Amino acid sequence: MAENKKVTIAKRSEDYSRWYLDVIKCADLAEHSVVKGCMVIKPYGYALWERIQSVLDRRFKETGHENAYFPIFIPKSFLSKEASHVKGFAKECAVVTHHRLIDSPEGGVEVDPASKLEEEVIVRPTSETIIYDSYSRWVNSWRDLPILINQWANVVRWEMRTRLFLRTTEFLWQEGHTAHATEEEAEDEARKMLGVYREFAEDWMAMPVVVGLKPEHDKFPGALRTYCIEAMMQDRKSLQAGTSHNLGQNFAKAFDVKFTDRDEQVKYVWQTSWGVSTRLIGGLIMAHSDDGGLVLPPKMASVKVVVVPIYREDGERAEVLAVVDRIRAALAESVPELKVDDRDNCGPGFKFTEWERKGVPVRLEVGPKDVAAGQVVLVRRDTGEKSVVPLDGLRGEVERALGDIQSALFERARKFREDNSREIDGYDEFVKFFEGEDAGGYAYCHWCGRAECDERAKSETKAGIRCLPLDRKAEAGRCVVCGGEADGGGRVIFAKAY
Amino acid sequence: MAENKKVTIAKRSEDYSRWYLDVIKCADLAEHSVVKGCMVIKPYGYALWERIQSVLDRRFKETGHENAYFPIFIPKSFLSKEASHVKGFAKECAVVTHHRLIDSPEGGVEVDPASKLEEEVIVRPTSETIIYDSYSRWVNSWRDLPILINQWANVVRWEMRTRLFLRTTEFLWQEGHTAHATEEEAEDEARKMLGVYREFAEDWMAMPVVVGLKPEHDKFPGALRTYCIEAMMQDRKSLQAGTSHNLGQNFAKAFDVKFTDRDEQVKYVWQTSWGVSTRLIGGLIMAHSDDGGLVLPPKMASVKVVVVPIYREDGERAEVLAVVDRIRAALAESVPELKVDDRDNCGPGFKFTEWERKGVPVRLEVGPKDVAAGQVVLVRRDTGEKSVVPLDGLRGEVERALGDIQSALFERARKFREDNSREIDGYDEFVKFFEGEDAGGYAYCHWCGRAECDERAKSETKAGIRCLPLDRKAEAGRCVVCGGEADGGGRVIFAKAY
Repeated sequence: MAENKKVTIAKRSEDYSRWYLDVIKCADLAEHSVVKGCMVIKPYGYALWERIQSVLDRRFKETGHENAYFPIFIPKSFLSKEASHVKGFAKECAVVTHHRLIDSPEGGVEVDPASKLEEEVIVRPTSETIIYDSYSRWVNSWRDLPILINQWANVVRWEMRTRLFLRTTEFLWQEGHTAHATEEEAEDEARKMLGVYREFAEDWMAMPVVVGLKPEHDKFPGALRTYCIEAMMQDRKSLQAGTSHNLGQNFAKAFDVKFTDRDEQVKYVWQTSWGVSTRLIGGLIMAHSDDGGLVLPPKMASVKVVVVPIYREDGERAEVLAVVDRIRAALAESVPELKVDDRDNCGPGFKFTEWERKGVPVRLEVGPKDVAAGQVVLVRRDTGEKSVVPLDGLRGEVERALGDIQSALFERARKFREDNSREIDGYDEFVKFFEGEDAGGYAYCHWCGRAECDERAKSETKAGIRCLPLDRKAEAGRCVVCGGEADGGGRVIFAKAY
Repeated sequence: MAENKKVTIAKRSEDYSRWYLDVIKCADLAEHSVVKGCMVIKPYGYALWERIQSVLDRRFKETGHENAYFPIFIPKSFLSKEASHVKGFAKECAVVTHHRLIDSPEGGVEVDPASKLEEEVIVRPTSETIIYDSYSRWVNSWRDLPILINQWANVVRWEMRTRLFLRTTEFLWQEGHTAHATEEEAEDEARKMLGVYREFAEDWMAMPVVVGLKPEHDKFPGALRTYCIEAMMQDRKSLQAGTSHNLGQNFAKAFDVKFTDRDEQVKYVWQTSWGVSTRLIGGLIMAHSDDGGLVLPPKMASVKVVVVPIYREDGERAEVLAVVDRIRAALAESVPELKVDDRDNCGPGFKFTEWERKGVPVRLEVGPKDVAAGQVVLVRRDTGEKSVVPLDGLRGEVERALGDIQSALFERARKFREDNSREIDGYDEFVKFFEGEDAGGYAYCHWCGRAECDERAKSETKAGIRCLPLDRKAEAGRCVVCGGEADGGGRVIFAKAY
């Protein structure tokens, strides 16, 4: 996989989009596929997804959920059953119309017209409809509730403008789908899972997030309300990193999911759905990486420590490798994610660059001088800081460095967000705040509640409403766009977004 | 999920097909979806797939493989690049032809003719073509080899006759795809992964398998040779439970996967692919289950032990539940997969039946008499055997019972297979052996090597060649079908099959 070695990484401050793609290429995370808009997730990138899966899957199970699997195909007619749902997804559906290819007279194969399907099926863009059709048969009594199910799956949305990890035609995700006896239980569930996402983003990905509510006009098609986590990237744009929907009874009514309650009354269930996707990897990249390439928080790294032996002749080599073995043994238990780069077709400098580009949090260098002095050189990826560490205390020092990097990355991202957040009350100031490609950040503003004002801001400044933060403080004010009275609930966040 | 409780299970000896579906329904493993040929894998069934995934994934990684993810869509033209591959898969492809739905004048939605794709894409039936297109860009030098990649994914083959788990339009699987510098390395890899499958089938699923080579005319479309594991089900039919292909250089040539070797020569790589799917769950069900429902080997069970408290009045209840808590604590460490069924809307008899149907290996019953005597009743699912166990030694007894059940199930299946295997040399005897619906087994016969004889046997007896066992003993003989001379390599296995 040699091709990535030749690329140089664009400067983040000069060409952010190019920089993002260069980081991905140089860390060997993913690449575009021949199929328009689809990506190939390479092993080093997929390891990040495996980490996301394993941590979240454990948390889902700890919170009482089970995994299941529903078909990838959805009958076309299902989409239309919930009116706003079909509006939200019909425009970007991969439609399967035939089920056979035959030899073409011109060579190759062509679609067999005789294999046309009676009813076309679409490749799931999300699974509410197909799953709730099942739930309608599974639920009879209050004793069958709650249903707490999650699915790990691929989904397809035929996007016109795609970007690796952030927006691809096919992506991987998990989608939780629950059904409850009461409105309150569903609301609790939607918020609980939002909390799981926040915790994962902050504690594992070191990515601070704002927890909020989407404005009414921007909620999930078919939902009662949509909660989200929003993270600020290093270009000051916001990334919606996860959503949790209180679906109310909209889908229950469309798919007839009913139960007999304790009071013998037949009622519709209350539902939620919630999901995060491979988009999180895009967020992880953009939250921390720098001009040297990827920067990974230790808790997300599949290689946490890389050891690079340095030597010139064979005598040195044996000596150095013996110490490397001691290091490996000393760290085996506390840092199993350690890699020794003992390739002998490239020098230390080449290796340093390569592992920097791959974002490995800690590099240990061991040369003949270090061997003589009973020490190693420890280099932090986040700061580039070098320190000399005695071999004897290595384990403690490495553990401490990993812990420090994890919290330093979070703190740096948090500070960046705070430094680029501002309360804005006038539209002129608002426009100025967002002027220029990398300008802006989070503008905390009052808003009158009308979709038109959001639309106007977006068309004039590219910055729209990201969310109504859950912790916003009640405050009277006038809409930053039209000057109309706001509802007094507090400021909302405007930002440019992915 | 109450509906499964009303069903009775057909007798295995009377209606095997009905029995199989009843077992699935009563254990709540899966159900048919509204989309033709697709299934919904319910949580209890999906837990089996999660077990398969976690064990195999660990083994793949231990043997040096990494996971990655490739697109679900394959350009139509890719299929045709390898001549026999397209023949094998073109007839059962889900073809995506459009990417948008629009409002229909009759209500609902219809396919937007303006969204027709320039080149249709098919939903992957297997991923050799799309993956090796990537490999052609990833491989330059011998230093880039071997590539050892696995993918967990869904695939689609538009099947006309489907059966839960055994043959469904969409199924879940893993597909390993490797590329090597030499023919020998590829052959070693194909056999090594076959060994991983055998080990998993036997040591975890308690399902004895024959390890063999597919006859030339029945190999994977595009392979040089196909290895397989075959397991005998309780109706004496054979199930192909996993395959591993030495692809030779066929795909390397079709997709131009070349490298510069140490000797500076440019060469095509040697490849393998190998896979197991949710079909394994069908095999697991059919290998062990009985007229009482599912029987699970302890190593596969997501619930290994169920505790059923028995009491009539509240005084008894508290007493019994206190002991149940002690049991839970005593087993917490060695059997975390323990469930206490403390529902109070159904009696013990109902619970016994339900957990029997779900195949839980060990049931512990605790009633007031047991509490008084400081004991519990331990019931084995495989034999129905009951024993009284003192509370004090419970942990050891449970562990022993689980170990015994695991080996007893393997032994029972092995004996069943041996009892139904026979060397047959004449065609009359062969025909008689396979006469009747549940007749037959494994017929070890000589074969002349011609596909026609396999075809004739299959059309006249429904029994065809399953494999050439790898451990067959060289022996001269005459083809059981045509009487022509066999190659002397030894007997092959004929059987009816799924």
